[in-house]
Amino acid sequence: MFHHSSKLQYEVRVDKPNPQFANHLQQAIGGIEGEIRVAMQYFFQAMGARGDAKYRDMLMMTATEELSHIEFLGHAVALNLEGAPANIQEKAAEDPVVNAILSGANPRHILSSGLSAMPVNANGVPFDMSHVYATGNLGADMLANVTAEAGGRVLASRLYNMTDDAGMKDMLSFLIARDTMHQQQWLAVIEELGGMEKQLPIPNSTPTENEATEHSYYFLNTSLDEPTPEGRWTSGKSLDGRSEFSVVDKVKPLGQKPDLGKARPDSGAQNEQIG
Amino acid sequence: MFHHSSKLQYEVRVDKPNPQFANHLQQAIGGIEGEIRVAMQYFFQAMGARGDAKYRDMLMMTATEELSHIEFLGHAVALNLEGAPANIQEKAAEDPVVNAILSGANPRHILSSGLSAMPVNANGVPFDMSHVYATGNLGADMLANVTAEAGGRVLASRLYNMTDDAGMKDMLSFLIARDTMHQQQWLAVIEELGGMEKQLPIPNSTPTENEATEHSYYFLNTSLDEPTPEGRWTSGKSLDGRSEFSVVDKVKPLGQKPDLGKARPDSGAQNEQIG
Amino acid sequence: MFHHSSKLQYEVRVDKPNPQFANHLQQAIGGIEGEIRVAMQYFFQAMGARGDAKYRDMLMMTATEELSHIEFLGHAVALNLEGAPANIQEKAAEDPVVNAILSGANPRHILSSGLSAMPVNANGVPFDMSHVYATGNLGADMLANVTAEAGGRVLASRLYNMTDDAGMKDMLSFLIARDTMHQQQWLAVIEELGGMEKQLPIPNSTPTENEATEHSYYFLNTSLDEPTPEGRWTSGKSLDGRSEFSVVDKVKPLGQKPDLGKARPDSGAQNEQIG
Amino acid sequence: MFHHSSKLQYEVRVDKPNPQFANHLQQAIGGIEGEIRVAMQYFFQAMGARGDAKYRDMLMMTATEELSHIEFLGHAVALNLEGAPANIQEKAAEDPVVNAILSGANPRHILSSGLSAMPVNANGVPFDMSHVYATGNLGADMLANVTAEAGGRVLASRLYNMTDDAGMKDMLSFLIARDTMHQQQWLAVIEELGGMEKQLPIPNSTPTENEATEHSYYFLNTSLDEPTPEGRWTSGKSLDGRSEFSVVDKVKPLGQKPDLGKARPDSGAQNEQIG
Amino acid sequence: MFHHSSKLQYEVRVDKPNPQFANHLQQAIGGIEGEIRVAMQYFFQAMGARGDAKYRDMLMMTATEELSHIEFLGHAVALNLEGAPANIQEKAAEDPVVNAILSGANPRHILSSGLSAMPVNANGVPFDMSHVYATGNLGADMLANVTAEAGGRVLASRLYNMTDDAGMKDMLSFLIARDTMHQQQWLAVIEELGGMEKQLPIPNSTPTENEATEHSYYFLNTSLDEPTPEGRWTSGKSLDGRSEFSVVDKVKPLGQKPDLGKARPDSGAQNEQIG
Amino acid sequence: MFHHSSKLQYEVRVDKPNPQFANHLQQAIGGIEGEIRVAMQYFFQAMGARGDAKYRDMLMMTATEELSHIEFLGHAVALNLEGAPANIQEKAAEDPVVNAILSGANPRHILSSGLSAMPVNANGVPFDMSHVYATGNLGADMLANVTAEAGGRVLASRLYNMTDDAGMKDMLSFLIARDTMHQQQWLAVIEELGGMEKQLPIPNSTPTENEATEHSYYFLNTSLDEPTPEGRWTSGKSLDGRSEFSVVDKVKPLGQKPDLGKARPDSGAQNEQIG
Repeated sequence: MFHHSSKLQYEVRVDKPNPQFANHLQQAIGGIEGEIRVAMQYFFQAMGARGDAKYRDMLMMTATEELSHIEFLGHAVALNLEGAPANIQEKAAEDPVVNAILSGANPRHILSSGLSAMPVNANGVPFDMSHVYATGNLGADMLANVTAEAGGRVLASRLYNMTDDAGMKDMLSFLIARDTMHQQQWLAVIEELGGMEKQLPIPNSTPTENEATEHSYYFLNTSLDEPTPEGRWTSGKSLDGRSEFSVVDKVKPLGQKPDLGKARPDSGAQNEQIG
Repeated sequence: MFHHSSKLQYEVRVDKPNPQFANHLQQAIGGIEGEIRVAMQYFFQAMGARGDAKYRDMLMMTATEELSHIEFLGHAVALNLEGAPANIQEKAAEDPVVNAILSGANPRHILSSGLSAMPVNANGVPFDMSHVYATGNLGADMLANVTAEAGGRVLASRLYNMTDDAGMKDMLSFLIARDTMHQQQWLAVIEELGGMEKQLPIPNSTPTENEATEHSYYFLNTSLDEPTPEGRWTSGKSLDGRSEFSVVDKVKPLGQKPDLGKARPDSGAQNEQIG
Repeated sequence: MFHHSSKLQYEVRVDKPNPQFANHLQQAIGGIEGEIRVAMQYFFQAMGARGDAKYRDMLMMTATEELSHIEFLGHAVALNLEGAPANIQEKAAEDPVVNAILSGANPRHILSSGLSAMPVNANGVPFDMSHVYATGNLGADMLANVTAEAGGRVLASRLYNMTDDAGMKDMLSFLIARDTMHQQQWLAVIEELGGMEKQLPIPNSTPTENEATEHSYYFLNTSLDEPTPEGRWTSGKSLDGRSEFSVVDKVKPLGQKPDLGKARPDSGAQNEQIG
Repeated sequence: MFHHSSKLQYEVRVDKPNPQFANHLQQAIGGIEGEIRVAMQYFFQAMGARGDAKYRDMLMMTATEELSHIEFLGHAVALNLEGAPANIQEKAAEDPVVNAILSGANPRHILSSGLSAMPVNANGVPFDMSHVYATGNLGADMLANVTAEAGGRVLASRLYNMTDDAGMKDMLSFLIARDTMHQQQWLAVIEELGGMEKQLPIPNSTPTENEATEHSYYFLNTSLDEPTPEGRWTSGKSLDGRSEFSVVDKVKPLGQKPDLGKARPDSGAQNEQIG
Repeated sequence: MFHHSSKLQYEVRVDKPNPQFANHLQQAIGGIEGEIRVAMQYFFQAMGARGDAKYRDMLMMTATEELSHIEFLGHAVALNLEGAPANIQEKAAEDPVVNAILSGANPRHILSSGLSAMPVNANGVPFDMSHVYATGNLGADMLANVTAEAGGRVLASRLYNMTDDAGMKDMLSFLIARDTMHQQQWLAVIEELGGMEKQLPIPNSTPTENEATEHSYYFLNTSLDEPTPEGRWTSGKSLDGRSEFSVVDKVKPLGQKPDLGKARPDSGAQNEQIG
Repeated sequence: MFHHSSKLQYEVRVDKPNPQFANHLQQAIGGIEGEIRVAMQYFFQAMGARGDAKYRDMLMMTATEELSHIEFLGHAVALNLEGAPANIQEKAAEDPVVNAILSGANPRHILSSGLSAMPVNANGVPFDMSHVYATGNLGADMLANVTAEAGGRVLASRLYNMTDDAGMKDMLSFLIARDTMHQQQWLAVIEELGGMEKQLPIPNSTPTENEATEHSYYFLNTSLDEPTPEGRWTSGKSLDGRSEFSVVDKVKPLGQKPDLGKARPDSGAQNEQIG
C-alpha cells in the first residue's frame, strides 16, 4: 500500500521562470527516458516478481522513489511556467528573445493544463504504457532497468547543459546522482546472482536442446563491401562461457525462396491473383 | 545502401497450419520484443553513431540481419494461416477444438491482411516507433540492445513452448540462437571499452561537478515497514569504482511542501481559485 | 513524497484461477475506466492545483489511494493466471470449455509478461496518458473526476457480474464501495463551493463580455424530422441562474459558404487547382 | 441519416492571418477538449442509448451541431494560414517577430496539409478515438459530456485570451456560449431524472449486496503528516442520501503481503527464480 | 452545416445476434478500412479544398453519406450484441460452440460500452486520426480516397463471407455497392481533369528543374540474384507521357559512406566517443 | 534476405546546417508520407503477395530501395544538426534569427537522440505501423502505393521550397524523381492487368450476387441546398464498364428509425434506463 508525506523529496527552486525549459523538463516526466516510465516499470515488475522476495521489495521501494521524482519535476515545470504570458502575441511583439522562447514553449501548457505539468514528453506526445518493460524474467528486467536509468541520466545531463538557472541545475544534479545509483543497483542484482556469465544467455532456463547452438556464437557480416569489424565479439570465449565467438562473413541464405502460390477465391483478392 | 537476395535467411516449414499460433508469432514481428523493433533500433543507432566507426558498421550489419528475421517470420505467419476458414461461424459449429483455436485467432488476419502477416503484436496493436531507443550515447544504446535481445529470447523461448509443430520449433531454435549471440555482441562492446566499471555511470562524460555525488551511492528504503533488502547494492565498492554503497533507511524529505498560490485571473481557472 | 508499506490495501483471494477473467480485470488497471488513470489524473491535478490548498491535499491523498488499488488489482491478475498452461494447444484439445476460456485469454499474459499484470486494457491496448484530464480549473477537474469514478464503478459492477469467484466478488465489492465514495467526494467540492449554480458555467471566471450570451441558453434542434425532445433543458431557469432555456428549432446557418479560392503556385497543389 | 447545407453554422472572419494561432485553434478541433471528440462522443452515445428515446434524440441532435463546429473551426484554421510563407527560412531572416510566430507554427500545416486544418491537437498529435466516452450508462455518459464541455469552454476562453483578432474573438465568443448551453443541457438530464441524490452512486442499478458499503462513505487520509482536509466530504449526509460521511485517518492495510512464490520452469524466467 | 433525420440510410436487420460478428463489424467502423476514416477524410479534404468548388461540394456530400454509414453499422453492432450473456463464464460451460463464439467476442462490448458499438477496430484498437489523408493536392487526395474505398470494399466482401445472417448479408451488399460507386467517383475526377497522363506525376505543379529527371523513369533492381521483373514499368512510354521507362540493374551507390566523426563533449555521449 | 553496402544510395551534402530544417526532414522519414512507411508497406505486401510472383519481386525490390532512402535522409538530418547549440538559451539571446530557428527545432534532437535522426514526424510523433497498408488484394495494394508515393512527392516538393541549401535541394530533387517513377510503377501494374476498367470494382472477385448493384452507380447528393456537382461521375458509362452513372438527389432514407429498447438489469445501466 502507498502513503504520502507533504514535502518534496528534493528542493525545487526556479530563479528565472522559462516556459521553453518547462517544455524541455517534460521529457524527464513523460518521455521514454522519464520518471513515469521508471516508476511504472518497477511497480509492474514488482507486482509480477517471482523468486527471491528481496528483489520484489527492492523494485517496489525504488518504484516509490520514482513517484517522488515525478512529483518534484512536476513542481519544477509549474514554477518555470509562472509568469508565462496568457497572450503570447502581444508579448511577442515586444522582445524578440522573449518571443523566440515563447515560440519554443508548449502552447498546451497555456491552453490545456493552465500552467502546470502534463504527462507528455518535450514534443507534447503523451506517455504510453507500452514502455513499461516487465517480462517476468529477472535478468531481462534488470537490464531493462539499467537501460532506462542510462537513458534517464543521459537526459538529465543534457537538461543540465540546457539551463543556466542555478536552482534547476541543483535539482538536476540530484537526479543525475540518483540515476547513478539506480544504474548500479540493478546491475548489482546480476552480479549478486553470479554475474553476466551465469545469467547469460537470458533466459538461462531455456533448455539447450531448444537452441540451434551452431548459430549461437557467430557474428554475421551482412555487408557486401565492408570487412567484419573485429572486436571482443568476433573471437575469444563467449560471455556466457559456453563457447567461442566466430565470424560468418559470406552470408549464405539457409532458407527457401518464399512462395505463397495463388490466392483463394473467397479471400478478397483480385481475380488475377486467383486464376 | 540496402540489397536483397531471394532466399530466406532460414528455412520456414509449417507442418500443421494454426491461425492461433500465427497470432502468437505476431508478437515476434510487431511486439516490443520483436524484430521490427531491433531492426529499426540498430538502424537508427547506426545512422546516429559518432566515435569509432566500427560500432556503426556492426550496428548496420546486425540491423540488416534483423530485417531478414522479419522476412522469415512473416512467411511463417502466412503459412500458419493457410487453410484458415473464410467463414469462421460455419466451421466453428463443427468442431469445438477448431472452434476455440479460431476464436483465439486474430480476425484481422482474415478481414484486413488476407491471410498474411501484419506489423502488429499478438493483441493486434501496431508497432510504434517510440520503441526505437537511440540516444547517441554508445553505452546507453548497447544496454538498450541487450535488453531488446533479452526480451526477444524470452519471447522466442515461450513461443517454442507454445507450439508442437516441428517446423516452427526448428525455426524458433534458430531465433533463440541468434538472440544468444546478439545479447553477447552488445555486451562485448562494453567489455572492449573497458568494462562496466569504466563505462559507468552512463554517460561517463558528465562532469563530476554536475552531480550531487553525496546522493549517488545510497539505496533508498522508501518502505514504512520493510527492512532494507541487503545485497550487493547496500554495501561494498560501487560498480563504477568511485565510491561505496550505503543505505538511507529513514527517508527524510529534502524539499519543501509545494505551493503554487492563487491562480491568475486570465488563466481559465474558477473564480474561487483566483480570489 | 511517496512511501510504501508491504501489505495490500485490501485482501485478494482467487478461488479458481481464470486467465480469461485475468484479461477482463486488465480493464480495471489499464482501461480508461481503470486505476492507473485515476491515480495519475489526481496526481497531476494535485501538482497543478492553485487556490485553496485543501483541494490539492485531497487530490494527492486519493491519488495515493488509487496507486494502492493498482497494486491489489495487479496481484489479482497474477493470481488468476496461476496454472495457465504454457502450452495452450495441448491443453485445448482436451477440454472444450478450458479451450474456449484460453482462447479468450490474452496471449501476452503468457508471451510477454510471464503470467502477471500489464498496464493495458482488456484488448491489450496500453494505457496512454492523454487520458489524464487536468485543466488547472477546479470545476472542470472535479467533473472529470466524477466521470472517471462513474466509469470505474460501472466497470467494477460489470466485472462483478462476470465472475462467480467468491474472492473476486469480495474484492470487487470493495472497489465498488470506494468508487461510491470517490464519486461523491469530488461532487462535494462543488457543493462546498456554492453548488452547480455558482460554479456554472465553467470557467466561471470568463468575463460575460467574452461570451455571445444570446447563444448561451437555447437547445438547438438539428433534426429535419424529429420534434424537439422537451425537458428540463428546453424551458425554465438555466442551471447557472443567469437566464431562461429556450429552443431553436428551425436551424438557420449564421455563417457564410466557405471558399478558399485558388491554391498558391508554391503550395504543392495540382496545376488544375492553381490555374 | 445525416444531411448537409452549404453555409457554416457561424460566420468566420480572420482579420490578420496568424499561423501560430492556426496551430492553437487545432486544440479546439483535435484536442481532447475539442469538437471531434464531442461530436463522436455524442454520436456513439446516441447509437448505444437504451431507455427513454428522448435522450438518444437529444444526443444525436447535439452530435450534429458539433460536426458543424468542426466545420467552422476548420475554416478558421485555413484562413489563419493564408499567406503563410512557403519558404520559412527566407522570410524569417527579415523580421524577428514574423520569425518567432512562424517558429511557433506547425510545420505540417505547410508540409502535410497544404495550409489547411488537420485532425490533430496543438502539439500535432492526432486525435484518437479512445477519448469517445460512451458507457451505456446514462448517468456516467451525462457526466462525461459535462466534463467535455467544461474542458471545451476552458479552452475556448483561453484561446479568446490568446488572440487580438476581432473576427476570431467573435467566433470564440459563440463557441463559449454554446459550451455554456451544452454544459447545462447534460446536467439538466440528471436533474430531470431526480437529481444527483437519486442518480448516485452511478450505476444506481448495482444491487446493494454487491457493495461493501462499510467502505462506501469514508474519506481516506493516506498522508503520513497532513491532517485530513475537512469539508463537505468528511461529515454530513452523503450526496446519495444513503449514509453519513466519515474519515479514516490512520490507514490500516486490510490485505496480505503479496507473494507469488517461485516461477514455473516453463515460464521463461531465470533459473534463479525457479529454483 | 450538418443536419440529421431520424431514419437510417439503410435498413438493418439481424436475424441471429452474434457477438463475435459484432466484433468483426467493428473493423468497418473503426478500422483503417472503415467508415469513420472515410467520413473524416472527405470532411477534412473538403475543408481544405482549393480550386474548382465542385470538388469541395462533392467531398462534403460523400463525407455526409459516410457519417450515415457509421450510423447504421453502429446499430448493426448493437443488434448483434443483444442477448450476449453478462456472465460469460456460466454460459460458456454449457455449450462449447457458444463458448468459442464468446471467446472471440470483444470483452469491452460488455465491460466498457454496455452492448453497443465503439470507435475501435476488430482488435479493439481505437481509430486514430492520423489516417485522415488530406494533402491539399487534389490528385493525391483522390488517390487516397480510391485506396480507402478499395480497402473498404475488400473488407465488406470479406465480412459478407464471414456471416450467414441474411440481414447482415443484405446490409453488407449495400455497403459493397456504395463502395463500388465511391471508388469510381474519385477516379472520375482524375479522368475529368484529363486523365492520369495529365495528372502525373503528382504534384504536376512541381517545376521540372526541381526534379533530377535522369532518375525519374528507371526501375531499380535492388536484388542480388533475381532478374528484373519485366512489365509495363520496364519499357515503353512512361504513364505521364514525358519519357520512356528503363531499368537499372546493377545498383551502384551514388553517395558517400556516411561519417559523423566524433561526438561533442557536451552532447551526452560516452567519453570513448568523444576522445 | 537483406544485405547492405557501405555507401549511401545518393550523396548527401549540407552546406549550412539548420536544425529547423532537420526537423522538417523528419516528416520524410517518420511521417505518413515518409520512407519508413513505404519501405514497410512494400515489404509487408511482398511477404503477403499471392498470384504472379513477379509482383512480389517488384515489391521487395522497391522496399529495399526505400530502406536506402531512410538511410540517406537520416544522414541529412544528422548533418543539419551539426553545430546545434547544446545550450539553446544562451545562444538564443544573441541573435533573434538563430533564436527563432532554434525555437522551431525539435528539442528532442538535442535531449533524446543526441543530434541525429529519429523515427518520428515533424511534430515529433513516432511513426506507427498502422499505416502499413497491405490487404492481400493486388489492386487495393497498388492504389495504396500510388497514394503513398503521391503524398511523398508532394512532401518532397514542399521541402524543396522550404530550403535554400543547395545540397539539400540536390538531394530532394533525387527524391522527387524517384517518387515520380514509383507512382507510375504501381499504376503500370494495373495497366498491365487490363487497366482500371478490368480491375474495378476492387475486389473484382466479389460475386455480383453479393452486391446490391441497384446502389452501385449513383452519386448521392446529401446536401439540402446545393445542386449536384455535375461531372464524369454523374452520367456516362461507369469506369468498370458495367453500368451508367446516375444521380440520387432527394435523399430518402431506406432504413428504420433505430430503437434499442430498454437496458437489461444486469448491464450496468441506470435504473431509469431499465425500468
